[in-house]
Amino acid sequence: MRIGILGAGAIAFGMAAFLAKAGHHPVLWSPSGARTRKLAAREPLTATGAVEFSGPVVVAHDGREAVADVDAVIVALPANGHRVAFDAAVPHLKSGQPVIVSSHSSFGALYLSKRLAERGVSLPIIVWGTTLLTGRQQPDGASVSVNTVRQKIDVATLPKAAAAEGKALCTELFGDRFVERDGLLAISLSNLNPQNHLGIALLNLTRMEKGEKWGQGEHVTPAVGQLIEALDAERLKIAESFGLSVRTVREHFSLSFHVPIGTVSDMNQQMHLEGRGGFGPATADSRYIYEDVPFGLVPTSLLGRIAGRPAVLHEAGTSLFSAAMNRNLAADNDLLPELALDSFSPAALRELCDQGFTA
Amino acid sequence: MRIGILGAGAIAFGMAAFLAKAGHHPVLWSPSGARTRKLAAREPLTATGAVEFSGPVVVAHDGREAVADVDAVIVALPANGHRVAFDAAVPHLKSGQPVIVSSHSSFGALYLSKRLAERGVSLPIIVWGTTLLTGRQQPDGASVSVNTVRQKIDVATLPKAAAAEGKALCTELFGDRFVERDGLLAISLSNLNPQNHLGIALLNLTRMEKGEKWGQGEHVTPAVGQLIEALDAERLKIAESFGLSVRTVREHFSLSFHVPIGTVSDMNQQMHLEGRGGFGPATADSRYIYEDVPFGLVPTSLLGRIAGRPAVLHEAGTSLFSAAMNRNLAADNDLLPELALDSFSPAALRELCDQGFTA
Repeated sequence: MRIGILGAGAIAFGMAAFLAKAGHHPVLWSPSGARTRKLAAREPLTATGAVEFSGPVVVAHDGREAVADVDAVIVALPANGHRVAFDAAVPHLKSGQPVIVSSHSSFGALYLSKRLAERGVSLPIIVWGTTLLTGRQQPDGASVSVNTVRQKIDVATLPKAAAAEGKALCTELFGDRFVERDGLLAISLSNLNPQNHLGIALLNLTRMEKGEKWGQGEHVTPAVGQLIEALDAERLKIAESFGLSVRTVREHFSLSFHVPIGTVSDMNQQMHLEGRGGFGPATADSRYIYEDVPFGLVPTSLLGRIAGRPAVLHEAGTSLFSAAMNRNLAADNDLLPELALDSFSPAALRELCDQGFTA
Repeated sequence: MRIGILGAGAIAFGMAAFLAKAGHHPVLWSPSGARTRKLAAREPLTATGAVEFSGPVVVAHDGREAVADVDAVIVALPANGHRVAFDAAVPHLKSGQPVIVSSHSSFGALYLSKRLAERGVSLPIIVWGTTLLTGRQQPDGASVSVNTVRQKIDVATLPKAAAAEGKALCTELFGDRFVERDGLLAISLSNLNPQNHLGIALLNLTRMEKGEKWGQGEHVTPAVGQLIEALDAERLKIAESFGLSVRTVREHFSLSFHVPIGTVSDMNQQMHLEGRGGFGPATADSRYIYEDVPFGLVPTSLLGRIAGRPAVLHEAGTSLFSAAMNRNLAADNDLLPELALDSFSPAALRELCDQGFTA
């Protein structure tokens, strides 16, 4: 299949390599054009590590080219790039043409759904709980080293009636690794990065600012772990109030990193002992703050208010990071204000997250 | 004069030495008795550094002995020891006998005032914005090394009508260093430790947990400094709403550490460059958390609610520290619940802080 990929970072390059290797035809589009320059000049895309591939890929010169003649579209950008990608794609998307959002940030799919409904276009929006893979782009501008291809990825489709169709497409493209979750709301409440990164980044913030090299797993100390578990309790309560079942943070670490279930700190210390604890960000100018706060903590706080289970610690994190960064991080979320969800009842929100906006 | 000192830590030892050297007669009382054992066995109290003294001092065996036959009483304990000290003193205090609280934690004086009113006792409660000196107790159990004797100490007296009398007593005992502030509420809003320690401790928390040796001034990075300045803005707004003038945190650092006014981070970096930045706590079991959160952030948050200027960042700090420490730190404040201030209007609170409770 011919697949438009909106984005040109490590995730987008890795997915393009994965798809090309499987015999599909990726079409990469970078909003700025900067990261696809080498590929546009016919240099081959090269992936090493968990995905091995080298070959030419098609580069789209504008949003229309990336979207108009493809069988499906994948949005593979950090959440603070989603609106630009959605706005570029919307005028060219056709009814029935699937869009995959990887990884889905809470409510991005609703924004896309609203814009499409305004155009009278109806299509399945498939959302993933996390990315297919992790990796690092290389400075040569044409290659990526892939660390991991995930064995399990949570998936849901908007509207929910298209769930089977959405999962089938993902499986056709990326293999048998998709676990169907109970709708967009469950996916939104399944992204643990924002809460985990709040604990990790806030209590280690001067290490980031000073550009230290610090082991991330090692620095999930008891205090960091306890904060993460308290944040998790808020998230679980909100999910419960919507009647949704989501994984706990302990299950997440155990499943993702194959360590015995224990406290979050103990599991991270174990990962560190095994040399798999990774490294924390070496700058405060990090997605742990600038992506995860506006597009993770802020939507969870909104859900908490709607559910009548205020996410006090999530809100506290947004406030303190905003003060420390001297920037209103909540205002960086450019998707939520378009949706005006504040006045929704829990039932109305659940309904919207199952059906999407309709033309 | 004969002065009862409730407390037997570095501050209490330092004050006893200061008073004895000036020809007064300190009577030291330790609630547990542990820290006065050597002095009770007739070893001399020895102070070195900014106060030089060696000589015997009287040790009281119970609260009655420390309070009953003295001209004035000084409470020189961390705030989480204030209630024990007040409760031990109240039955033995006599009308007109002055009590100095050093340093005053927000509303401690009101608790004492209430207990005394219940007994029909009326006396001046003199509150200081900070301690007379800083120092470190030595492991020999009989000596203290004094780092600094402060040149300026903010003072107020409850009831406010006794302000001149209170300041005169302080000056007689400790010299010309007292600056009269506009009542108990101004003093309560002048203690900058809780906000500064929130910024410093939270964003460096894993350094404390891991027992690292870290320069405190050095680690008031831009993010830490910006958080402290945002906390300061909350405190200043609350003070303003009560019609009170208090020093800004920039003025505080400039006055206390003699660095040019700049950002809080810049001033701390300057102190670090001059070798005067000090060291941060080498354990999370620190007064930066266990004293400053319940007895500093929590009272300021209460004032913010009463003033209609919610101290969002102060509350966020209490919530996140409580989650990280897995302990309800607000509940550690054993003075506030006795006062039931939540329902007070700003005017009624101001009145109470000027008059105290009356029998």
